[in-house]
Amino acid sequence: MNAKKTAAEKAVEYIKDGMTVGLGTGSTAYWAIRRIGERVQEGLNIRAIATSRASEELAVELGIAMMSSSEAVELDLTIDGADEVDRSWSLIKGGGGALLREKIVASISKQLIIIVDESKVKERLGGFALPVEVIPFGYEITMRQLSATGCTPVLRMLEGKPYWTDNGNYIVDCDYGDILHPSQLAIRINAIPGVVDNGLFVGMAGQVIVGYGDGTVKQLERRGSE
Amino acid sequence: MNAKKTAAEKAVEYIKDGMTVGLGTGSTAYWAIRRIGERVQEGLNIRAIATSRASEELAVELGIAMMSSSEAVELDLTIDGADEVDRSWSLIKGGGGALLREKIVASISKQLIIIVDESKVKERLGGFALPVEVIPFGYEITMRQLSATGCTPVLRMLEGKPYWTDNGNYIVDCDYGDILHPSQLAIRINAIPGVVDNGLFVGMAGQVIVGYGDGTVKQLERRGSE
Repeated sequence: MNAKKTAAEKAVEYIKDGMTVGLGTGSTAYWAIRRIGERVQEGLNIRAIATSRASEELAVELGIAMMSSSEAVELDLTIDGADEVDRSWSLIKGGGGALLREKIVASISKQLIIIVDESKVKERLGGFALPVEVIPFGYEITMRQLSATGCTPVLRMLEGKPYWTDNGNYIVDCDYGDILHPSQLAIRINAIPGVVDNGLFVGMAGQVIVGYGDGTVKQLERRGSE
Repeated sequence: MNAKKTAAEKAVEYIKDGMTVGLGTGSTAYWAIRRIGERVQEGLNIRAIATSRASEELAVELGIAMMSSSEAVELDLTIDGADEVDRSWSLIKGGGGALLREKIVASISKQLIIIVDESKVKERLGGFALPVEVIPFGYEITMRQLSATGCTPVLRMLEGKPYWTDNGNYIVDCDYGDILHPSQLAIRINAIPGVVDNGLFVGMAGQVIVGYGDGTVKQLERRGSE
Protein backbone atom coordinates (compact mmCIF):
# COMPACT_ATOMS: atom_id res chain seq x y z
CA MET A 1 0.00 0.00 0.00
CA ASN A 2 1.06 3.56 -0.73
CA ALA A 3 0.87 5.33 2.64
CA LYS A 4 0.89 8.78 1.06
CA LYS A 5 -1.98 7.89 -1.25
CA THR A 6 -4.03 6.41 1.58
CA ALA A 7 -3.62 9.50 3.77
CA ALA A 8 -4.41 11.75 0.82
CA GLU A 9 -7.59 9.90 -0.07
CA LYS A 10 -8.77 10.00 3.53
CA ALA A 11 -8.33 13.80 3.60
CA VAL A 12 -10.26 14.25 0.35
CA GLU A 13 -13.32 12.73 2.08
CA TYR A 14 -13.62 16.01 4.00
CA ILE A 15 -14.32 17.97 0.82
CA LYS A 16 -18.01 18.73 0.38
CA ASP A 17 -19.94 20.10 -2.56
CA GLY A 18 -19.62 23.87 -3.02
CA MET A 19 -16.38 24.24 -1.07
CA THR A 20 -13.39 26.40 -1.96
CA VAL A 21 -10.27 24.29 -1.63
CA GLY A 22 -6.52 24.95 -1.42
CA LEU A 23 -4.34 22.41 -3.25
CA GLY A 24 -0.95 21.62 -1.77
CA THR A 25 2.32 20.77 -3.47
CA GLY A 26 4.53 17.68 -3.36
CA SER A 27 4.36 13.92 -3.60
CA THR A 28 1.57 13.47 -1.03
CA ALA A 29 -0.53 16.43 -2.17
CA TYR A 30 -0.23 14.96 -5.67
CA TRP A 31 -2.39 12.03 -4.60
CA ALA A 32 -4.96 14.35 -3.04
CA ILE A 33 -5.25 16.35 -6.26
CA ARG A 34 -5.61 13.12 -8.24
CA ARG A 35 -8.43 11.96 -5.97
CA ILE A 36 -10.13 15.38 -6.08
CA GLY A 37 -9.98 15.15 -9.88
CA GLU A 38 -11.79 11.79 -9.74
CA ARG A 39 -14.48 13.21 -7.46
CA VAL A 40 -14.93 16.21 -9.79
CA GLN A 41 -15.41 13.76 -12.68
CA GLU A 42 -18.10 12.09 -10.55
CA GLY A 43 -19.89 15.44 -10.17
CA LEU A 44 -18.29 17.18 -7.16
CA ASN A 45 -18.60 20.95 -7.58
CA ILE A 46 -15.73 22.92 -6.00
CA ARG A 47 -13.37 25.74 -6.83
CA ALA A 48 -9.69 25.47 -6.03
CA ILE A 49 -6.50 27.51 -5.74
CA ALA A 50 -3.08 25.88 -6.17
CA THR A 51 0.10 26.49 -4.17
CA SER A 52 2.45 25.94 -7.12
CA ARG A 53 2.49 26.00 -10.88
CA ALA A 54 2.99 22.23 -10.89
CA SER A 55 -0.15 21.62 -8.81
CA GLU A 56 -2.12 24.09 -10.88
CA GLU A 57 -1.18 22.34 -14.11
CA LEU A 58 -2.16 18.96 -12.68
CA ALA A 59 -5.48 20.31 -11.39
CA VAL A 60 -6.38 21.96 -14.69
CA GLU A 61 -5.53 18.74 -16.54
CA LEU A 62 -7.91 16.85 -14.24
CA GLY A 63 -10.75 19.31 -14.90
CA ILE A 64 -10.79 20.98 -11.45
CA ALA A 65 -12.25 24.52 -11.63
CA MET A 66 -9.62 27.00 -10.50
CA MET A 67 -10.00 30.41 -8.90
CA SER A 68 -7.50 33.26 -8.86
CA SER A 69 -5.88 34.58 -5.70
CA SER A 70 -7.89 37.80 -6.09
CA GLU A 71 -11.09 35.80 -5.63
CA ALA A 72 -9.77 33.83 -2.68
CA VAL A 73 -10.88 35.75 0.41
CA GLU A 74 -11.28 32.66 2.52
CA LEU A 75 -10.99 28.96 1.73
CA ASP A 76 -13.06 26.23 3.34
CA LEU A 77 -10.30 23.66 3.32
CA THR A 78 -6.69 23.19 2.27
CA ILE A 79 -5.01 19.80 1.95
CA ASP A 80 -1.24 19.77 1.88
CA GLY A 81 1.74 17.61 2.78
CA ALA A 82 4.63 18.39 5.13
CA ASP A 83 8.28 17.42 5.45
CA GLU A 84 8.01 17.01 9.20
CA VAL A 85 5.24 17.25 11.75
CA ASP A 86 5.67 17.15 15.51
CA ARG A 87 3.23 16.10 18.24
CA SER A 88 1.91 19.65 18.64
CA TRP A 89 1.18 19.78 14.90
CA SER A 90 3.94 22.26 14.13
CA LEU A 91 5.29 21.64 10.66
CA ILE A 92 8.32 22.02 8.47
CA LYS A 93 7.31 22.56 4.87
CA GLY A 94 9.02 23.74 1.72
CA GLY A 95 11.01 20.72 0.62
CA GLY A 96 9.14 21.07 -2.67
CA GLY A 97 10.06 24.76 -2.88
CA ALA A 98 6.52 26.13 -2.53
CA LEU A 99 6.53 27.18 1.13
CA LEU A 100 5.47 30.77 0.58
CA ARG A 101 2.43 30.07 -1.57
CA GLU A 102 1.56 27.19 0.75
CA LYS A 103 1.70 29.54 3.74
CA ILE A 104 -0.37 32.24 2.03
CA VAL A 105 -3.03 29.71 1.07
CA ALA A 106 -2.97 28.04 4.52
CA SER A 107 -3.35 31.43 6.20
CA ILE A 108 -6.76 32.02 4.59
CA SER A 109 -8.06 28.46 5.09
CA LYS A 110 -10.71 27.75 7.70
CA GLN A 111 -9.16 24.31 7.97
CA LEU A 112 -5.72 23.02 7.00
CA ILE A 113 -5.51 19.23 6.77
CA ILE A 114 -1.95 17.92 6.69
CA ILE A 115 -1.33 14.54 5.08
CA VAL A 116 1.89 12.62 5.65
CA ASP A 117 3.24 9.12 5.76
CA GLU A 118 4.48 7.85 9.12
CA SER A 119 8.12 8.70 8.34
CA LYS A 120 7.32 12.42 8.67
CA VAL A 121 6.09 12.29 12.27
CA LYS A 122 8.83 13.43 14.68
CA GLU A 123 9.25 14.08 18.37
CA ARG A 124 11.05 17.30 17.46
CA LEU A 125 11.35 19.30 14.28
CA GLY A 126 14.73 19.91 12.70
CA GLY A 127 15.92 16.59 11.28
CA PHE A 128 14.81 18.00 7.97
CA ALA A 129 16.70 21.19 7.07
CA LEU A 130 14.34 24.18 7.30
CA PRO A 131 13.70 25.79 3.89
CA VAL A 132 13.86 29.59 3.90
CA GLU A 133 12.87 31.64 0.86
CA VAL A 134 15.23 34.58 0.27
CA ILE A 135 15.52 37.46 -2.19
CA PRO A 136 18.37 36.90 -4.70
CA PHE A 137 19.87 40.38 -4.05
CA GLY A 138 22.45 40.04 -1.29
CA TYR A 139 21.60 36.39 -0.61
CA GLU A 140 25.15 35.81 0.69
CA ILE A 141 24.49 38.49 3.32
CA THR A 142 21.16 36.90 4.19
CA MET A 143 22.81 33.48 4.48
CA ARG A 144 25.39 34.82 6.93
CA GLN A 145 22.62 36.31 9.04
CA LEU A 146 20.72 33.02 8.93
CA SER A 147 23.87 31.28 10.08
CA ALA A 148 23.92 33.58 13.14
CA THR A 149 20.53 32.12 14.20
CA GLY A 150 22.25 28.78 14.83
CA CYS A 151 22.04 26.84 11.60
CA THR A 152 24.17 25.66 8.73
CA PRO A 153 22.60 27.31 5.65
CA VAL A 154 22.97 25.79 2.20
CA LEU A 155 21.79 27.44 -1.01
CA ARG A 156 19.52 24.99 -2.84
CA MET A 157 20.86 24.21 -6.31
CA LEU A 158 19.29 22.67 -9.40
CA GLU A 159 21.39 21.59 -12.36
CA GLY A 160 24.34 23.66 -11.23
CA LYS A 161 22.36 26.88 -10.69
CA PRO A 162 20.48 28.29 -7.72
CA TYR A 163 16.98 26.82 -7.54
CA TRP A 164 14.31 29.43 -8.36
CA THR A 165 10.94 29.48 -6.61
CA ASP A 166 7.72 30.27 -8.47
CA ASN A 167 8.16 33.79 -7.03
CA GLY A 168 11.62 34.27 -8.54
CA ASN A 169 13.49 33.85 -5.25
CA TYR A 170 16.08 31.42 -3.86
CA ILE A 171 15.70 28.72 -1.21
CA VAL A 172 18.25 28.32 1.57
CA ASP A 173 18.04 25.01 3.46
CA CYS A 174 18.93 25.63 7.10
CA ASP A 175 20.04 22.72 9.24
CA TYR A 176 19.37 23.59 12.89
CA GLY A 177 19.46 20.14 14.38
CA ASP A 178 16.64 19.99 16.97
CA ILE A 179 14.37 23.02 16.82
CA LEU A 180 13.29 23.68 20.39
CA HIS A 181 11.07 26.77 19.94
CA PRO A 182 9.60 26.81 16.44
CA SER A 183 7.44 29.93 16.82
CA GLN A 184 10.27 32.03 18.28
CA LEU A 185 12.63 30.82 15.58
CA ALA A 186 10.10 31.70 12.87
CA ILE A 187 9.87 35.30 14.14
CA ARG A 188 13.63 35.61 14.37
CA ILE A 189 14.17 34.32 10.83
CA ASN A 190 11.47 36.53 9.31
CA ALA A 191 13.06 39.62 10.90
CA ILE A 192 16.21 39.12 8.79
CA PRO A 193 16.17 41.50 5.82
CA GLY A 194 16.19 39.48 2.61
CA VAL A 195 14.13 36.63 4.09
CA VAL A 196 10.73 36.32 2.44
CA ASP A 197 9.40 33.53 4.65
CA ASN A 198 10.38 30.25 6.25
CA GLY A 199 8.98 26.73 6.25
CA LEU A 200 7.86 26.64 9.88
CA PHE A 201 4.07 26.41 10.12
CA VAL A 202 3.12 26.80 13.77
CA GLY A 203 -0.50 26.76 14.93
CA MET A 204 -1.80 26.45 11.39
CA ALA A 205 -2.68 22.74 10.98
CA GLY A 206 -6.22 21.84 12.05
CA GLN A 207 -5.82 18.12 11.50
CA VAL A 208 -2.97 15.73 10.69
CA ILE A 209 -3.71 12.49 8.85
CA VAL A 210 -0.95 9.88 8.89
CA GLY A 211 -0.73 7.02 6.43
CA TYR A 212 1.05 3.79 7.45
CA GLY A 213 2.76 1.18 5.37
CA ASP A 214 0.14 -1.44 6.34
CA GLY A 215 -2.59 0.57 4.61
CA THR A 216 -4.14 2.10 7.73
CA VAL A 217 -4.59 5.81 8.35
CA LYS A 218 -4.81 7.56 11.70
CA GLN A 219 -5.37 11.07 12.92
CA LEU A 220 -2.32 12.27 14.80
CA GLU A 221 -3.31 13.04 18.37
CA ARG A 222 -2.34 16.51 19.41
CA ARG A 223 -0.18 17.26 22.43
CA GLY A 224 0.13 20.69 24.05
CA SER A 225 2.23 23.12 22.09
CA GLU A 226 5.78 24.17 22.92
CA MET B 1 20.13 76.70 0.75
CA ASN B 2 19.22 73.11 -0.03
CA ALA B 3 18.71 71.46 3.37
CA LYS B 4 19.00 67.95 1.92
CA LYS B 5 22.27 68.76 0.22
CA THR B 6 23.73 70.33 3.35
CA ALA B 7 22.86 67.33 5.51
CA ALA B 8 24.23 64.98 2.85
CA GLU B 9 27.54 66.80 2.58
CA LYS B 10 27.96 66.82 6.35
CA ALA B 11 27.49 63.03 6.43
CA VAL B 12 30.03 62.46 3.68
CA GLU B 13 32.69 64.05 5.94
CA TYR B 14 32.56 60.83 7.99
CA ILE B 15 33.89 58.76 5.08
CA LYS B 16 37.58 57.99 5.44
CA ASP B 17 40.05 56.52 3.00
CA GLY B 18 39.82 52.75 2.62
CA MET B 19 36.25 52.44 3.87
CA THR B 20 33.49 50.24 2.46
CA VAL B 21 30.38 52.37 2.07
CA GLY B 22 26.66 51.71 1.53
CA LEU B 23 24.92 54.18 -0.78
CA GLY B 24 21.30 55.02 -0.06
CA THR B 25 18.46 55.81 -2.42
CA GLY B 26 16.29 58.89 -2.87
CA SER B 27 16.51 62.65 -3.18
CA THR B 28 18.73 63.19 -0.11
CA ALA B 29 21.02 60.20 -0.71
CA TYR B 30 21.43 61.55 -4.24
CA TRP B 31 23.37 64.52 -2.84
CA ALA B 32 25.53 62.24 -0.73
CA ILE B 33 26.46 60.14 -3.75
CA ARG B 34 27.24 63.30 -5.73
CA ARG B 35 29.53 64.53 -2.96
CA ILE B 36 31.20 61.11 -2.62
CA GLY B 37 31.83 61.23 -6.37
CA GLU B 38 33.61 64.58 -5.97
CA ARG B 39 35.76 63.24 -3.14
CA VAL B 40 36.65 60.17 -5.22
CA GLN B 41 37.73 62.52 -8.03
CA GLU B 42 39.92 64.25 -5.44
CA GLY B 43 41.57 60.92 -4.59
CA LEU B 44 39.40 59.28 -1.92
CA ASN B 45 39.75 55.51 -2.13
CA ILE B 46 36.63 53.60 -1.12
CA ARG B 47 34.48 50.74 -2.33
CA ALA B 48 30.71 51.04 -2.31
CA ILE B 49 27.51 49.02 -2.61
CA ALA B 50 24.26 50.61 -3.77
CA THR B 51 20.74 50.07 -2.46
CA SER B 52 19.04 50.52 -5.84
CA ARG B 53 19.76 50.32 -9.52
CA ALA B 54 19.29 54.10 -9.76
CA SER B 55 21.96 54.79 -7.10
CA GLU B 56 24.28 52.23 -8.65
CA GLU B 57 24.04 53.88 -12.06
CA LEU B 58 24.73 57.31 -10.58
CA ALA B 59 27.71 56.01 -8.59
CA VAL B 60 29.25 54.25 -11.59
CA GLU B 61 28.80 57.40 -13.66
CA LEU B 62 30.68 59.37 -11.00
CA GLY B 63 33.57 56.90 -10.97
CA ILE B 64 32.91 55.35 -7.55
CA ALA B 65 34.36 51.81 -7.30
CA MET B 66 31.55 49.35 -6.66
CA MET B 67 31.57 46.00 -4.89
CA SER B 68 29.10 43.15 -5.26
CA SER B 69 26.86 41.94 -2.45
CA SER B 70 28.89 38.70 -2.32
CA GLU B 71 31.96 40.73 -1.28
CA ALA B 72 30.06 42.79 1.28
CA VAL B 73 30.50 40.98 4.59
CA GLU B 74 30.48 44.15 6.64
CA LEU B 75 30.39 47.81 5.68
CA ASP B 76 32.10 50.60 7.57
CA LEU B 77 29.41 53.17 6.92
CA THR B 78 26.09 53.60 5.13
CA ILE B 79 24.54 56.98 4.35
CA ASP B 80 20.85 56.99 3.51
CA GLY B 81 17.77 59.18 3.73
CA ALA B 82 14.44 58.48 5.44
CA ASP B 83 10.82 59.44 4.97
CA GLU B 84 10.31 59.97 8.68
CA VAL B 85 12.51 59.84 11.76
CA ASP B 86 11.33 60.07 15.34
CA ARG B 87 13.16 61.21 18.47
CA SER B 88 14.36 57.68 19.26
CA TRP B 89 15.82 57.43 15.74
CA SER B 90 13.27 54.92 14.52
CA LEU B 91 12.64 55.41 10.82
CA ILE B 92 10.13 54.95 8.08
CA LYS B 93 11.85 54.29 4.78
CA GLY B 94 10.81 53.00 1.41
CA GLY B 95 9.10 55.98 -0.20
CA GLY B 96 11.60 55.51 -3.01
CA GLY B 97 10.71 51.81 -3.29
CA ALA B 98 14.11 50.47 -2.17
CA LEU B 99 13.36 49.54 1.44
CA LEU B 100 14.50 45.94 1.24
CA ARG B 101 17.92 46.57 -0.27
CA GLU B 102 18.31 49.53 2.08
CA LYS B 103 17.55 47.28 5.06
CA ILE B 104 19.91 44.53 3.90
CA VAL B 105 22.73 47.03 3.43
CA ALA B 106 21.98 48.82 6.73
CA SER B 107 21.98 45.48 8.56
CA ILE B 108 25.65 44.85 7.70
CA SER B 109 26.82 48.42 8.35
CA LYS B 110 28.88 49.22 11.42
CA GLN B 111 27.33 52.67 11.25
CA LEU B 112 24.17 53.92 9.55
CA ILE B 113 24.02 57.70 9.15
CA ILE B 114 20.57 59.01 8.30
CA ILE B 115 20.31 62.34 6.49
CA VAL B 116 17.05 64.29 6.33
CA ASP B 117 15.73 67.79 6.05
CA GLU B 118 13.84 69.14 9.03
CA SER B 119 10.42 68.27 7.55
CA LYS B 120 11.12 64.56 8.16
CA VAL B 121 11.59 64.79 11.93
CA LYS B 122 8.40 63.75 13.77
CA GLU B 123 7.24 63.21 17.31
CA ARG B 124 5.65 59.95 16.16
CA LEU B 125 6.00 57.85 13.03
CA GLY B 126 3.01 57.19 10.83
CA GLY B 127 2.14 60.46 9.10
CA PHE B 128 3.92 58.92 6.13
CA ALA B 129 2.22 55.70 4.97
CA LEU B 130 4.47 52.73 5.78
CA PRO B 131 5.79 51.00 2.64
CA VAL B 132 5.61 47.21 2.73
CA GLU B 133 7.20 45.04 0.02
CA VAL B 134 4.98 42.09 -0.92
CA ILE B 135 5.19 39.13 -3.29
CA PRO B 136 2.90 39.57 -6.33
CA PHE B 137 1.30 36.11 -5.89
CA GLY B 138 -1.78 36.55 -3.73
CA TYR B 139 -1.08 40.22 -3.02
CA GLU B 140 -4.81 40.83 -2.50
CA ILE B 141 -4.71 38.25 0.31
CA THR B 142 -1.62 39.88 1.78
CA MET B 143 -3.30 43.30 1.62
CA ARG B 144 -6.33 42.03 3.52
CA GLN B 145 -4.04 40.63 6.21
CA LEU B 146 -2.15 43.93 6.38
CA SER B 147 -5.47 45.70 6.78
CA ALA B 148 -6.16 43.51 9.85
CA THR B 149 -3.05 45.00 11.53
CA GLY B 150 -4.83 48.37 11.70
CA CYS B 151 -3.97 50.20 8.50
CA THR B 152 -5.46 51.25 5.21
CA PRO B 153 -3.30 49.50 2.59
CA VAL B 154 -2.95 50.92 -0.92
CA LEU B 155 -1.14 49.15 -3.76
CA ARG B 156 1.46 51.55 -5.16
CA MET B 157 0.87 52.21 -8.86
CA LEU B 158 3.04 53.65 -11.62
CA GLU B 159 1.58 54.62 -14.98
CA GLY B 160 -1.56 52.57 -14.41
CA LYS B 161 0.27 49.39 -13.37
CA PRO B 162 1.50 48.08 -10.03
CA TYR B 163 4.90 49.56 -9.18
CA TRP B 164 7.66 46.92 -9.35
CA THR B 165 10.61 46.95 -6.97
CA ASP B 166 14.14 46.11 -8.09
CA ASN B 167 13.40 42.64 -6.65
CA GLY B 168 10.30 42.11 -8.81
CA ASN B 169 7.81 42.63 -5.99
CA TYR B 170 5.00 45.10 -5.25
CA ILE B 171 4.86 47.89 -2.68
CA VAL B 172 1.78 48.38 -0.49
CA ASP B 173 1.63 51.75 1.29
CA CYS B 174 0.01 51.25 4.69
CA ASP B 175 -1.52 54.24 6.47
CA TYR B 176 -1.60 53.47 10.21
CA GLY B 177 -1.97 57.01 11.53
CA ASP B 178 0.25 57.25 14.62
CA ILE B 179 2.51 54.20 15.05
CA LEU B 180 2.83 53.68 18.80
CA HIS B 181 5.08 50.59 18.91
CA PRO B 182 7.24 50.41 15.78
CA SER B 183 9.25 47.32 16.71
CA GLN B 184 6.17 45.27 17.63
CA LEU B 185 4.42 46.38 14.46
CA ALA B 186 7.44 45.41 12.37
CA ILE B 187 7.38 41.86 13.77
CA ARG B 188 3.64 41.55 13.24
CA ILE B 189 3.85 42.71 9.62
CA ASN B 190 6.81 40.46 8.77
CA ALA B 191 4.92 37.42 10.10
CA ILE B 192 2.28 37.83 7.38
CA PRO B 193 2.92 35.35 4.57
CA GLY B 194 3.55 37.27 1.35
CA VAL B 195 5.27 40.17 3.13
CA VAL B 196 8.94 40.44 2.18
CA ASP B 197 9.79 43.30 4.53
CA ASN B 198 8.51 46.64 5.78
CA GLY B 199 9.91 50.17 5.93
CA LEU B 200 10.27 50.38 9.73
CA PHE B 201 13.94 50.62 10.72
CA VAL B 202 14.11 50.35 14.50
CA GLY B 203 17.42 50.45 16.36
CA MET B 204 19.42 50.64 13.15
CA ALA B 205 20.38 54.33 12.83
CA GLY B 206 23.64 55.27 14.55
CA GLN B 207 23.37 58.96 13.82
CA VAL B 208 20.77 61.32 12.35
CA ILE B 209 21.88 64.53 10.61
CA VAL B 210 19.18 67.12 9.99
CA GLY B 211 19.49 69.91 7.44
CA TYR B 212 17.56 73.14 7.98
CA GLY B 213 16.31 75.71 5.51
CA ASP B 214 18.69 78.34 6.90
CA GLY B 215 21.70 76.29 5.84
CA THR B 216 22.59 74.87 9.25
CA VAL B 217 22.89 71.17 10.08
CA LYS B 218 22.41 69.54 13.47
CA GLN B 219 22.70 66.07 14.89
CA LEU B 220 19.31 64.92 16.13
CA GLU B 221 19.53 64.29 19.85
CA ARG B 222 18.35 60.84 20.79
CA ARG B 223 15.63 60.20 23.32
CA GLY B 224 14.99 56.84 24.98
CA SER B 225 13.33 54.34 22.71
CA GLU B 226 9.68 53.29 22.82
